Amino acid sequence: MSHFLDHIIVILVRPQMGENIGAAARAMANFGLRNLRLVAPRDGWPNPRADSLSSGAFDHMEPVTLYDTLSDALHDTHLSYATTARPRDMVKDVLTPREATDQSYAHVAAYPQQKVAFVFGAERTGLENDEIAQCHKIVTAPTSDDFSSLNLGQGVLMLAYELFQAHHIHDADKPPAPITHETASQASFDNFFHRLEAALEDGGFFREDSLRPRVIRNLRSFFMRTHPTEQELKTLHGVLRSLVSLRGGKNDS
Amino acid sequence: MSHFLDHIIVILVRPQMGENIGAAARAMANFGLRNLRLVAPRDGWPNPRADSLSSGAFDHMEPVTLYDTLSDALHDTHLSYATTARPRDMVKDVLTPREATDQSYAHVAAYPQQKVAFVFGAERTGLENDEIAQCHKIVTAPTSDDFSSLNLGQGVLMLAYELFQAHHIHDADKPPAPITHETASQASFDNFFHRLEAALEDGGFFREDSLRPRVIRNLRSFFMRTHPTEQELKTLHGVLRSLVSLRGGKNDS
Repeated sequence: MSHFLDHIIVILVRPQMGENIGAAARAMANFGLRNLRLVAPRDGWPNPRADSLSSGAFDHMEPVTLYDTLSDALHDTHLSYATTARPRDMVKDVLTPREATDQSYAHVAAYPQQKVAFVFGAERTGLENDEIAQCHKIVTAPTSDDFSSLNLGQGVLMLAYELFQAHHIHDADKPPAPITHETASQASFDNFFHRLEAALEDGGFFREDSLRPRVIRNLRSFFMRTHPTEQELKTLHGVLRSLVSLRGGKNDS
Repeated sequence: MSHFLDHIIVILVRPQMGENIGAAARAMANFGLRNLRLVAPRDGWPNPRADSLSSGAFDHMEPVTLYDTLSDALHDTHLSYATTARPRDMVKDVLTPREATDQSYAHVAAYPQQKVAFVFGAERTGLENDEIAQCHKIVTAPTSDDFSSLNLGQGVLMLAYELFQAHHIHDADKPPAPITHETASQASFDNFFHRLEAALEDGGFFREDSLRPRVIRNLRSFFMRTHPTEQELKTLHGVLRSLVSLRGGKNDS
């Protein structure tokens, strides 16, 4: 495959301190990662504080790109990991950084055209549940039970370190385990999911407005978990179409 | 053996910035390391700058101890690793952090009375050749060839992270528990799936009888892959009900 690390995208969502963006970039460049995306950085971009903390890391990377929403930033990725210390009440695989990087490596080896994203939340608040729901899996670094205070730069560092090790170890010898199916892009998935959401709206599925965000989030998590192929999404579109339309005119309960 | 991580000693030789000592302590506490030794810290000890950068890490550790020379600091250790980015002209084993931590783990398992030291040099200058010579082996973290600028806190973090993983993987007889959500029974699943199938039938989803078994199989595979909970099946029943309710009047393409 082409260079594994070039398939990895780091996304920082609503980062607050330029210093932390700089530290994240430095950690990335130390371990050969080149693609950094920022979603709504508090102090805008470019940011001189980030530059000064980066030790020149940006010179070794692709230009940083800016997005308004996580959804936009994920549009061309096929596999995404939400990094969060606290797995919420959400049904998703939770992996260690090492497991996630091994899995990413296998994914990129099987699908050399695809990109894999690692998503980090804001410094204090982390990722919101809706943002976690937009990712396929969760990565949580095991830390000491009674003292767990990794900052943003440290979180990126550990992950970058593991990714580089995976690259280093695997490229050296054995081929990694293959992935079983070719997954659709996030944009294709979103397209289906928005159609489903609209149809449910029409069908009166959301009885209470207050519960709606959580119901959508759970539903999204459910469908994300399948990690569908383009073919499967096509089938789901057909399923949806056929469920809302009754052949011949007979009525269903 | 007693707690593996309690056998590990981190030694910082001639550290300059209190901030870096604080960051190192924070990284240690994050990963359950408790023993920090300082050799001739430039600004003496205690150091308020270290405290403020530590996020309270020192509260989770043994008291820091001070030494005049590396030789003194190593006196009661049995295995020591010099961390240095540049292996000098010296005949010693050079290990990755992962190899070194695995080796440490094996060592402590075999010799439960012994201590293992990881030695870090001053910020800019690193360890001197004489100091490297006092250690048994060298640890070098593989980093990107064209950008390698790990600072002291980051170096300690990576090592602490690896030590904790080694502890975690080996000590827990059980591997870190994969999150298992409580899945629904096959009967519940089949119940949902048959309802879906019937609704699709009514909607004219199966255009060609000959393809029908394969389409159903694929659809079933898709939904099986989620391995849903009972709660999720309930939601899916609701989704189905609400989608087919749209069939009443308007016609969808």
